Amino acid sequence: MTDARQQALDYHALPTPGKISIELTKPAETAKDLALAYSPGVAEPVKEIAMNPDEVYRYTGKGNLVAVITNGSAILGLGNLGPLASKPVMEGKALLFKRFAGIDSIDIEVKHRTAEEFVNTVANIADTFGGINLEDIKAPECFEIEKALIQRCSIPVFHDDQHGTAIVTAAGMINALEIQGKDISESTIVCMGAGAAAIACMELLIKCGAVREKIYMLDRKGVIHTRREDLNEYKKLFANNTDKRTLEDVIADADVFVGVSGPDVLPAEAVALMAPNPVIFACSNPDPEIKPELAHSVRDDLIMATGRSDFPNQVNNVLCFPFIFRGALDVRAKAITDEMKVAAVHAIRELAKEPVPQAVLDASGVSELSFGREYIIPKPMDARLLPKVARAVAEAAVASGVAQIELPENYML
Amino acid sequence: MTDARQQALDYHALPTPGKISIELTKPAETAKDLALAYSPGVAEPVKEIAMNPDEVYRYTGKGNLVAVITNGSAILGLGNLGPLASKPVMEGKALLFKRFAGIDSIDIEVKHRTAEEFVNTVANIADTFGGINLEDIKAPECFEIEKALIQRCSIPVFHDDQHGTAIVTAAGMINALEIQGKDISESTIVCMGAGAAAIACMELLIKCGAVREKIYMLDRKGVIHTRREDLNEYKKLFANNTDKRTLEDVIADADVFVGVSGPDVLPAEAVALMAPNPVIFACSNPDPEIKPELAHSVRDDLIMATGRSDFPNQVNNVLCFPFIFRGALDVRAKAITDEMKVAAVHAIRELAKEPVPQAVLDASGVSELSFGREYIIPKPMDARLLPKVARAVAEAAVASGVAQIELPENYML
Repeated sequence: MTDARQQALDYHALPTPGKISIELTKPAETAKDLALAYSPGVAEPVKEIAMNPDEVYRYTGKGNLVAVITNGSAILGLGNLGPLASKPVMEGKALLFKRFAGIDSIDIEVKHRTAEEFVNTVANIADTFGGINLEDIKAPECFEIEKALIQRCSIPVFHDDQHGTAIVTAAGMINALEIQGKDISESTIVCMGAGAAAIACMELLIKCGAVREKIYMLDRKGVIHTRREDLNEYKKLFANNTDKRTLEDVIADADVFVGVSGPDVLPAEAVALMAPNPVIFACSNPDPEIKPELAHSVRDDLIMATGRSDFPNQVNNVLCFPFIFRGALDVRAKAITDEMKVAAVHAIRELAKEPVPQAVLDASGVSELSFGREYIIPKPMDARLLPKVARAVAEAAVASGVAQIELPENYML
Repeated sequence: MTDARQQALDYHALPTPGKISIELTKPAETAKDLALAYSPGVAEPVKEIAMNPDEVYRYTGKGNLVAVITNGSAILGLGNLGPLASKPVMEGKALLFKRFAGIDSIDIEVKHRTAEEFVNTVANIADTFGGINLEDIKAPECFEIEKALIQRCSIPVFHDDQHGTAIVTAAGMINALEIQGKDISESTIVCMGAGAAAIACMELLIKCGAVREKIYMLDRKGVIHTRREDLNEYKKLFANNTDKRTLEDVIADADVFVGVSGPDVLPAEAVALMAPNPVIFACSNPDPEIKPELAHSVRDDLIMATGRSDFPNQVNNVLCFPFIFRGALDVRAKAITDEMKVAAVHAIRELAKEPVPQAVLDASGVSELSFGREYIIPKPMDARLLPKVARAVAEAAVASGVAQIELPENYML
């Protein structure tokens, strides 16, 4: 067993199993405390909520509680290992919610037969929570599941593998294109991968100015084009009316490559064929679609991002999901709208252009960061993300009409 | 608004809403910490669990996590107020699990149409937890719901309103009858109320030696007897072949009255008719079936218990549920068997006979406690309950063949 492997196992097992536990936020020592916390005192908030359901936000933890919910059908890059095996990842996500945004979060692993059964199960327990973060659910079921849950729940439902990835990718991409002097609306984009993250990334890039017809999406069978008859309704939206069939066909003169597929699928020869000043986001984790050193060895006019923390420009969902929920919860948003997602994109990308305080450099373990080819996107340990992104999201919630309470005065300022 | 009411509301609302939150049990400060807690490190425990599902107990919090689950159909004595209004109670139960037994517990409020839908929902999320505590679900649905969930889940499922109440009642009752010099097998028992708690109490008393034919159960229509045709299958088990029809008919010469119904339904005149040295458990809360001062004014050969903390002999479920789950979780019991319930009864009742240490007197706010008419059952703040009851339950789990791991050496000693 490698050291890194043993260290990861020990971290999870010792001194107690897992990573999260419950703590009490109110005194519970004396009999008097307990008479307030439970019978008879607890009857008072119960009666208040029965009269006015909104009071549940005043008297319970609902408003700061997000469920991280999965069926374990697409765990990390490991595939469909089922609900039980996904639990360490879901607890990890709960840990990140607390660590980065002070959000109480618990994991729920769901076993089910049909997508409908998954939806019913989650909708039935949704009253418990202030928000639902769907996680590691495979495509295409994830699309119908998320859509159905958004319809049935009056709290935010957000599939992070889709939208968190898309928001962070879009933030980095817009900055990278700006540095390369390219207009997103004139850029040709190759997207390797046609799963949940790929489709969400492309949809959000389109909302940020990209043109659908200039996008070439590839799945295992090659380019997704209008003459293919094996496409689900989600892939169909990206069927390009083209004669190009292979990665080689579409990568020639492409401005952007986005990889959300698997390791080492982008050969150096393909990189050499791209347009001048290209952008490559190789997000497969831990092994990217092309190793940065290989890509840079082919050409030096490149901006490259990966999912890894040991290279510049890490595309990491933690830049977004804690803060998008923070902002949504704080104005009690009924849903997470496209406007809120786009607001998060711009808040994240603008932060990368600001001077970086020493504390952020220290937390990130680097001596310098300035906006440019090797710093297109903030670092995960940047404490400025919380106020900046949460505020932008909360304001967008208000503007798009889904906020149920006013933005607190001086919120996050 | 009364002071007590305002105090209860403030306790729940201030300084933050609710009573529980999530805390991290592992370091999560540096990028290195996060690489262990989440990607890439978290893949290691995932793979271990995928290969051997039992490893979920080593690498996640499942083994110390109990869900408190309700549909809000019978909240305290307030009735069917629905899932949302029940949340303060369920969070309160979670608080008690942590406070008394160190068990991490979260509340889940379920909305559903049919009992089957409730069962499916809970069974689908059960993998998340180490145990399920059902709470405040009305009869008779609670019986079929619990039965179905026990069949479908491989973790303990326990409806506390039934079995917790029954265990504590039986513990106190056996001690009270002993003091009164009565044999439980020869005692006539009147049970006012025919809901979940009443039926569970009587079933457990029978397991502890009471005789079914000597039990008279009453619902809103009077005595439950064999000629009634309006009985559900659960009440039918207590249909007595008798001509007696009213409380007055059955209370004459009865040894025991158990009230799990509502306030002031037992008149002083009825108490006067009971056999010598009677036992009255008036458990309706906050207002008992008869006020203790009234009952004692009628006769002085009485032992009385209530659900209230301001009278002697409080029947309080917190004497049982944290510890029955503690014992069950610690040997990873697949279920909570009758043997485990009976073991809890005897552990609780035996504790009342032991000399009470000063620390327990201090915690309970009394200067003296010795086994007798005014101390038939331990006080809720008695810290000896945890080791004593948990150990008895864990041993019974091993003995009844449902334990999946061995009793830790010197467990709770």
